[in-house]
Amino acid sequence: MLAVGVVCHLGLLVDGDPMVVPTVYGVAGDTMYLHGSVASRSLVAASRATVCVTVTHVDGLVLARSVFEHGLNYRCAMIYGVPRPVTDPTEKLLGLRVLTEQLAPGQWDYARRPSKKELAATSLLALALDEASVKVRTGPPDDGDGPDAALGLWAGVLPIAQSWGDAVPDPALPSGTARPGHLERILSSPPGSITK
Amino acid sequence: MLAVGVVCHLGLLVDGDPMVVPTVYGVAGDTMYLHGSVASRSLVAASRATVCVTVTHVDGLVLARSVFEHGLNYRCAMIYGVPRPVTDPTEKLLGLRVLTEQLAPGQWDYARRPSKKELAATSLLALALDEASVKVRTGPPDDGDGPDAALGLWAGVLPIAQSWGDAVPDPALPSGTARPGHLERILSSPPGSITK
Repeated sequence: MLAVGVVCHLGLLVDGDPMVVPTVYGVAGDTMYLHGSVASRSLVAASRATVCVTVTHVDGLVLARSVFEHGLNYRCAMIYGVPRPVTDPTEKLLGLRVLTEQLAPGQWDYARRPSKKELAATSLLALALDEASVKVRTGPPDDGDGPDAALGLWAGVLPIAQSWGDAVPDPALPSGTARPGHLERILSSPPGSITK
Repeated sequence: MLAVGVVCHLGLLVDGDPMVVPTVYGVAGDTMYLHGSVASRSLVAASRATVCVTVTHVDGLVLARSVFEHGLNYRCAMIYGVPRPVTDPTEKLLGLRVLTEQLAPGQWDYARRPSKKELAATSLLALALDEASVKVRTGPPDDGDGPDAALGLWAGVLPIAQSWGDAVPDPALPSGTARPGHLERILSSPPGSITK
């Protein structure tokens, strides 16, 4: 489930208090790469201490007969560890490729790759997938066989999914700029899916 | 933007390390209510120290001409504060109503409301919306007027939204159980939208 998703939430300590920042990520083998689009002070702090990275997929709204049994169907992974700042340019390129391809398969080969300067300006963290806990809730509401079933109320699940809207071309594009073929491949699966 | 959303991510300290848990929430005035569907030890810890609650809406994938300029369009709010455990039954009912109606408007009046026992078994936190920071990124990629524009590559935004799937009735429902009218109202707006 970590190979699917658009953002994770990185929890870290900043000046003794927790801070939770969303960031894009990618997974290669047993390593998770996190992008440094978050405040650099967070990344600096993160590289010295344990963090918690949480990936959450909300799959549905559970409508039960009682308010008490309402809830969500979801999958959630929490990964704990001390992240390692990626400094080797080769690994940085690998991490960026993994990250880019998880979000937009095909873009790595299509777009201009990072220059040395851009690479140096990119913060990337690697986190080993050693310590993780996973929580999952699936299925119908839990009060279908209890006393509340006699209430005669409708109950069930409203599935939730992420989906793409129509691609919006950059207004700065010269008219007639062709849409690359891999765009259809990206749009053919839900956001954050790996289609390889 | 806090009045829209399915889950937030609650960051707190547990035994000195950060922990990030997804949880449902609702907003009433300048108070955010968080549900205690997370581990109770987290809630206990949360009620004694500063937490960070992050609400993230991913709005689109920004496909630029260069890998470096790739990113997301998003809206993100981070709220800091010391949460207050809600113990007063009247406020607990209010908080649960806010939370339920944010996710599923109409369900509060339709479903069976919490009993005293259920209410006592429900953990709810209140967080004042005093200290928050908001980050937003919108619009096309940033390299439309730079040297990369000459590459002739397609660039733009792929919008991302959450949407409902078809309602899945609980298999335990007696055949012929009517779908309540407010279900269509819930399904007429994206998940987590308030339709009131």
